[in-house]
Order: sequence, then C-alpha cells, then structure tokens
Amino acid sequence: LRRLPASSAALFLFFFESDRTMILELADIRIQPGKQQEFDAAIVRGVEQAIRSAKGFLGYRIQHGIETPERYVLTIYWETLENHTVDFRESAAFQDWRAIVGPYFAAAPTVEHFTLLADAPAPSLK
Amino acid sequence: LRRLPASSAALFLFFFESDRTMILELADIRIQPGKQQEFDAAIVRGVEQAIRSAKGFLGYRIQHGIETPERYVLTIYWETLENHTVDFRESAAFQDWRAIVGPYFAAAPTVEHFTLLADAPAPSLK
Repeated sequence: LRRLPASSAALFLFFFESDRTMILELADIRIQPGKQQEFDAAIVRGVEQAIRSAKGFLGYRIQHGIETPERYVLTIYWETLENHTVDFRESAAFQDWRAIVGPYFAAAPTVEHFTLLADAPAPSLK
Repeated sequence: LRRLPASSAALFLFFFESDRTMILELADIRIQPGKQQEFDAAIVRGVEQAIRSAKGFLGYRIQHGIETPERYVLTIYWETLENHTVDFRESAAFQDWRAIVGPYFAAAPTVEHFTLLADAPAPSLK
C-alpha cells in the first residue's frame, strides 16, 4: 500500500481538494418501466460519449433506485455552474446526450445544482 | 506524490473498492425558509453525533441547493440496506438525529435507497 503509482496519488489528492469548490448537478430521472437493463447501458454510454469531454466536467456518479427501479439519480461534478448551464447545454454534445437517453425518459428529469456542504469517509479508516 | 502515508493509500483503495457494493441512502430535505445557516451546522452535527458511529455506516455527503436554498440532499453510505432501515432506524441514535434536525424540517424528508451503477473521476487525471 505504500507504493501507489503517482497517477493514483494525484487522483486521490485531487478528489479531496477539488470537492470543496465544485458544483454538483443532480438530475433525478424516471424512465419507462421495464427498460432498466437497456437504460443502465445507455446512461453510462451517454455520459461517457457526450458529457465526459465537456468543458469543466470533473466526474460523475450514477445511482439506481432500489424502491423505485425506474428512478436514476445522475450526479455530475462541474468546475462552475456555467460549465453546465451555458457551456454544455448550448453545445452539440447536449443534443447527443439527449438523443442517447431521452427515448427512455418517462418525464423530463428534475435538475438542480448544489454546493458540497460536507462529506466524510468511513470513520474506521481515519 | 509517490510516497503517500499508508493510511491515505488504504483510504483511497477502500473508496474505489467499497463503492461497488455499498447502499446509498438519499434523503431529500426541505427546511423552513431563513434557517439555512442554522441548519448547515445542525445537519453536520446530527450526522457526526448520531449517525457516524452507527453499524454499517461508511460515510456521507451533504449537498446544499443553489436554486432552492431550503433544499438539502443528504447521502449516507451503508454496508447494507438493513444497516439503515433496521439497525439505525430502530436505534436510540435515530431519535437523537431527529431531535437535532427535525425542528428545521418544512416537511418529512423523502428517503430512498440506491445502488451505485457507475462513477468516474476527472478524465484529465487518468
């Protein structure tokens, strides 16, 4: 454990420093029933192909609902609010994204932005 | 960067391995208007005092709404679903938690659980 490659170390430090100022886009998505398996692949492909290379993109997380299997929560980490609301939404990549995932939506996703107030890893590893 | 302390390396590896099986509790919270500053402190104190030592607790994240300043999204990472729904909710610590944060709520929070479908850090650091 003492000899991580430099890239991993940089990534580790990046996470714990950048978290403090980034913007979190939270998209609450409902898809059509019975399409979960297809959508699992489509949403990952959509983020990787259409969003990952966007200006200000820092990373993402996709959560899949247990009580509500048609529900997905997509979190995208951006450097600034405008990187999402202006740079990305006005780009051709946004149209690409919607073309990949839009056909599965049961309704328009609810999208809002957040700052990170606090976070903490597992206490046993401190 | 090549010589991280062992504890950081362990933490780094833990994050990227444990993410794959953990349960994410997502609590969507609306508080009374004008109470944000007080609640910022109360929710952190509530998690640290009443939830952090719970069985199966792995970590947390608290997001604060930009478009909706009365909105907070609390994510808690658990080892299993039952660690939250049974072990924690039936414990005295749950009452402690509600005593700390409950007075600020504008309505009962919406709580659901998720699995992690995918996540990825910033592409420039790969």
